[in-house]
Amino acid sequence: MEKQKPSLPQGTRDFAPEVMVKRNFILDTIKKTFQKFGFLPLETPAMEQLEVLTGKYGEEGDQLIFKILNNGNFLKVKGEKGKLKNQLDSILNNPTFELSSRELASSEDSETKKQDWLLQSEVKKLAFQISDKALRYDLTVPFARFVVMNRNNLAFPFKRYQIQPVWRGDSPQKGRYREFYQCDADVVGTDSLICEAEIILMINEVLANLGIQDFNLKINNRKILTGIAEVLGDAHKVGELCVAIDKLDKIGLEKVNQELIARGFSATAVDQLQPILALKGNAAEKIKFLSDLFINSEIGQKGVAEIQEVFELVQSFTQTMTVEADYHLDFDITLARGLSYYTGAIFEVKVNGVSIGSISGGGRYDNLTGTFGMPDVSGVGFSFGVDRIFDVLEELQIFPSNTTTTTQVMLSYFDEADQKYALPLLNQLRQAGINSEIYPSIAKIKKQMGYADAKKIPFVIVIGSEERQSGNLTFKDMQSGEQQKLTIAQIIQKFC
Amino acid sequence: MEKQKPSLPQGTRDFAPEVMVKRNFILDTIKKTFQKFGFLPLETPAMEQLEVLTGKYGEEGDQLIFKILNNGNFLKVKGEKGKLKNQLDSILNNPTFELSSRELASSEDSETKKQDWLLQSEVKKLAFQISDKALRYDLTVPFARFVVMNRNNLAFPFKRYQIQPVWRGDSPQKGRYREFYQCDADVVGTDSLICEAEIILMINEVLANLGIQDFNLKINNRKILTGIAEVLGDAHKVGELCVAIDKLDKIGLEKVNQELIARGFSATAVDQLQPILALKGNAAEKIKFLSDLFINSEIGQKGVAEIQEVFELVQSFTQTMTVEADYHLDFDITLARGLSYYTGAIFEVKVNGVSIGSISGGGRYDNLTGTFGMPDVSGVGFSFGVDRIFDVLEELQIFPSNTTTTTQVMLSYFDEADQKYALPLLNQLRQAGINSEIYPSIAKIKKQMGYADAKKIPFVIVIGSEERQSGNLTFKDMQSGEQQKLTIAQIIQKFC
Repeated sequence: MEKQKPSLPQGTRDFAPEVMVKRNFILDTIKKTFQKFGFLPLETPAMEQLEVLTGKYGEEGDQLIFKILNNGNFLKVKGEKGKLKNQLDSILNNPTFELSSRELASSEDSETKKQDWLLQSEVKKLAFQISDKALRYDLTVPFARFVVMNRNNLAFPFKRYQIQPVWRGDSPQKGRYREFYQCDADVVGTDSLICEAEIILMINEVLANLGIQDFNLKINNRKILTGIAEVLGDAHKVGELCVAIDKLDKIGLEKVNQELIARGFSATAVDQLQPILALKGNAAEKIKFLSDLFINSEIGQKGVAEIQEVFELVQSFTQTMTVEADYHLDFDITLARGLSYYTGAIFEVKVNGVSIGSISGGGRYDNLTGTFGMPDVSGVGFSFGVDRIFDVLEELQIFPSNTTTTTQVMLSYFDEADQKYALPLLNQLRQAGINSEIYPSIAKIKKQMGYADAKKIPFVIVIGSEERQSGNLTFKDMQSGEQQKLTIAQIIQKFC
Repeated sequence: MEKQKPSLPQGTRDFAPEVMVKRNFILDTIKKTFQKFGFLPLETPAMEQLEVLTGKYGEEGDQLIFKILNNGNFLKVKGEKGKLKNQLDSILNNPTFELSSRELASSEDSETKKQDWLLQSEVKKLAFQISDKALRYDLTVPFARFVVMNRNNLAFPFKRYQIQPVWRGDSPQKGRYREFYQCDADVVGTDSLICEAEIILMINEVLANLGIQDFNLKINNRKILTGIAEVLGDAHKVGELCVAIDKLDKIGLEKVNQELIARGFSATAVDQLQPILALKGNAAEKIKFLSDLFINSEIGQKGVAEIQEVFELVQSFTQTMTVEADYHLDFDITLARGLSYYTGAIFEVKVNGVSIGSISGGGRYDNLTGTFGMPDVSGVGFSFGVDRIFDVLEELQIFPSNTTTTTQVMLSYFDEADQKYALPLLNQLRQAGINSEIYPSIAKIKKQMGYADAKKIPFVIVIGSEERQSGNLTFKDMQSGEQQKLTIAQIIQKFC
C-alpha cells in the first residue's frame, strides 16, 4: 500500500472528542427546548436533486453549491455526441480559458468580459450535464421540498426542527467553513402570532440553559419597514431601504444616508427618515410613535399591531408585567435582516460583551413553498448558529465543568490480580449507570494517571493488593488531587 | 419563480418526524452504552480529499465513491490545454463511447472489451482532474486518517464512537440506500482482549435496552481460520477459505465444498475440513477440539487462546458461570466476515425469528492506519446497522410506546378567552419539563383533536368556560378516550 500524508479538504473540520462533548452540550440544550415546545425532529438527505437547489440562493449562491459528479461515464450525456464535442470545443477555444481570475478581474476589455461570461455559462451548462445531484446549501429549501412532497400526509400546522450540516463553496476564513451545522425550527401552516411569542420564549430558555445572561433579542416586523418605505414615498423600495439601514451598525448613520440617496431616495425622504432611525425609548413609546407615523399606511399599522400582539402574548404566557426586561426584548426599528423572503416578524440575537456576531435569527415568511408549487403557506422559523454559540461560550469561559468528557471514572491497577479484581467492580459501576472505563493493560500507575489526565476523566480508582484485601479502594479526585478510601458501594453513592 | 415538482435523488430518504423519533430511540440507546463504556464522540467532515478515499475499498468500491465536482471552471486543470483536448478526444472517439452497458456486457469481441477498458480508465483519470473531494464511503477510513493526523495529540488507547451518514453509489434496492448511517465504536492503540470482552458486554446491553431478547452473538477469530488453512496445507489460502465458508449459510455445504475445490484446495484438504465445519457443542468442547487440531499450528493455537481468554474475561466481568447462555455467545468456527483487514477476534450479531441479516459486526485489525504511514497500531471495533435494527424492531413490533412522538400533551380550547387562559398553563407545563404545545389558532375542537391524533400526542387538555371557572381542566387520554377533570397541578403531577 502507498504511504500518504493525509489532509482535510479546505474549510472542513474534524470535531475531536473534547470539542464534540461541548458541541453536544449546546445541541442537546437546543433540542430539549425545541421538544419542550412541541417541535419534532426531521432529517433530509445530504444530496438533493441539483434542480431542487438551483435558482433559490441567487446567482452567487448557485456558484457555491457543491455538485456531485455523476457516477460511471459521466460524459455520456443525453443528446448527441457531436453536440457535446461542440460544447467542449467552445469551452477550450474560448480566448479567456487560460486567463487567471486575477487577470480577468483586472481586464477592462469589454470583449474579454463578454467572452468570460460566455465561458462561465458554457461551463455551468456542462456542470448540469455531468452532475444531477448536489449537497444541500441550507435546511430551508430541503424543508420546503419535504413539506410539498408530503403535503397530503402531514398534520398542519407542521412543527419541525432540523439539525444537520450544510455545505457551501465559500472561500474559507476565520469563522466561515465549507461544512457547518444549521439548527432550524419552523412552524408552517398557521399565521398565529403565538408562534412568534413561543420563539421568544424558546430563545430565552435556550440561552438561560447555556448560561448566557447578557444578550439582546432584537425584534422588528417587515411590515413596519414597508410602512416606513411607504411613508417615505414608495413601498416598493422597502428592499433598498432594508439593505441600507441593515448597515447602520457597521458604517454609521452618515454613510447610510449617502447610500439611501445613491439608491434613489430623495433628500426629503432621507430627512423624514432621521427621527425614525433616531427613535429611542421602550416598546410602548416606539409603538405610540409608529402608530402616529402610519396614520396613512395600512401595512405599517398592521406591522405595529403584530408587534404589539406578540408582546402581549409573551405577557399572557409569562404573566409578567416587565416583558421587555425579563425576556431581553429590544424592539429595534432598524433591524432589517437580509433575506428577502421574510414578510412579518424578524428576530436577531446578539450576545453583549463578546466579539461575535448574532447567534440566532429568523422570521415569518408567507411563500416558502411557492417555488415548488404550493403557494400561500405562512410559516415562521428561526435558527441557532452552533459554531458561534460555541465561540461565545468559549470567550465567556462558561462551558459547564462537566463538558470536558462524558467519562466519570477510570479504574487503574498494578498487576494481573488487581485487574481481575477490578473487572466486576467496573461492571457494578456501569450497572449503576456510571460512565466508566478501565485502563486496558498493565502499565505503571503514572502512565495510567497521565492517560486519565489527558482525557480529563475527573475521578480515578486505584486498586492494589491492600485495596483488594480491605475492599477500601483509593478514590482520587483528579482536579484537587485529594484521595479517599471508599468501598465500591460508597463510590457508587457519590455519583448518584 | 418557476414551478417544479420536487423529488429526491435515487436511493436517498427523508426521515419524517415519526421515523426520526424511533431512530433517535435506537441511536440514543447505542450512544448511552458507548458512553457508559468510556467511548467519546468523534465527527469527521462529509467530504474527504479524494486521494484519502481511493484505493481503500477495492476497484469496485472506488467506482461507488461519490465525487464532488470542483467549483468554478472545473475543466481548467493543471497542465496544458492541449493535453486535456487529447484526453477529451480519446474519450469521445473511443468506439465504445456510445454503447450501452447492456451492449457492452453482451459483447464477446476482445477488441471491444479492450477499448471499453481504455475508455473507463480515461474517464476515471478525467474524474480525478475535475474533482479533488469526495463523500466519505465509511467511517473507518476517516477515523484512520483522523488518528494519523492527530497522533501526537491523542491519548492512546484512543476510544471513540462515531455516528454519521456515509454515501455509496450502489444500485438502490430494498434495504440498500445511497445514504445511510453507520454507527461505529473502536479502540486503537492496545491489543488488550478486555476490549473484546467489553464489546460483548456492550452489544448485550444495547440489545437488552432495545428490547431484543432472542439473538446470537457469533464470535470467531481470524487466527483460528488461518490455523485451519495451515492444517489444510497452506496458511496463505486463508482468504480463499474465508470467502468460501462465509457462504455456508447461503449455499450449503455441498456447494461450499465445490467452491473450495475450484479455489484450488485439494480433495484431501476438503475431506479434512468436513469434521471442522460440522463441529458441534459448546465453546469448551470446540476449544478442546481445536487445541488438538492445532497441535502443529502456532497461529491456530494463538487464536484458540484468545477466544478462551475473551470468554474468561466476560466471566470475570460478570461473575457468571454461564457466560455463553447469559451473553448469547455462539463460538462459530465458520464465521469468516468478508473484510480482509481483520486479524483477530471477529463478531457478528443475528436476531432470531426475523428476516433481516446481521445487525452488528466487527473485529480486531492490526494495521488500519498503515496506509497513512502509521504502522502497527492494533485496534478493535464494531458497528451497529441502524437501518436494520429499525427493521427488526418494526418486524417484532417492539418499539416502546413512547417512541411515536416526543410531545406529551396538547392544549385545546374553544375561544379567545380560553386561549388566553391556556397560555400561562402551557408555560407551567413546560417549566415542569413537560413537552407540550397549544393548537395555535381558534378552531373546532374536532379539528384540534384530529391534529393531536395525527401527531400521536398522547394527552389533550380541553379548556372551555366551565374549566376556566372551576380550574378543573378536562384531561383526555387520547388512546383510551378516557376523560378526567384535573387541576393543572394534578396534571403536572401525572407526568412526574
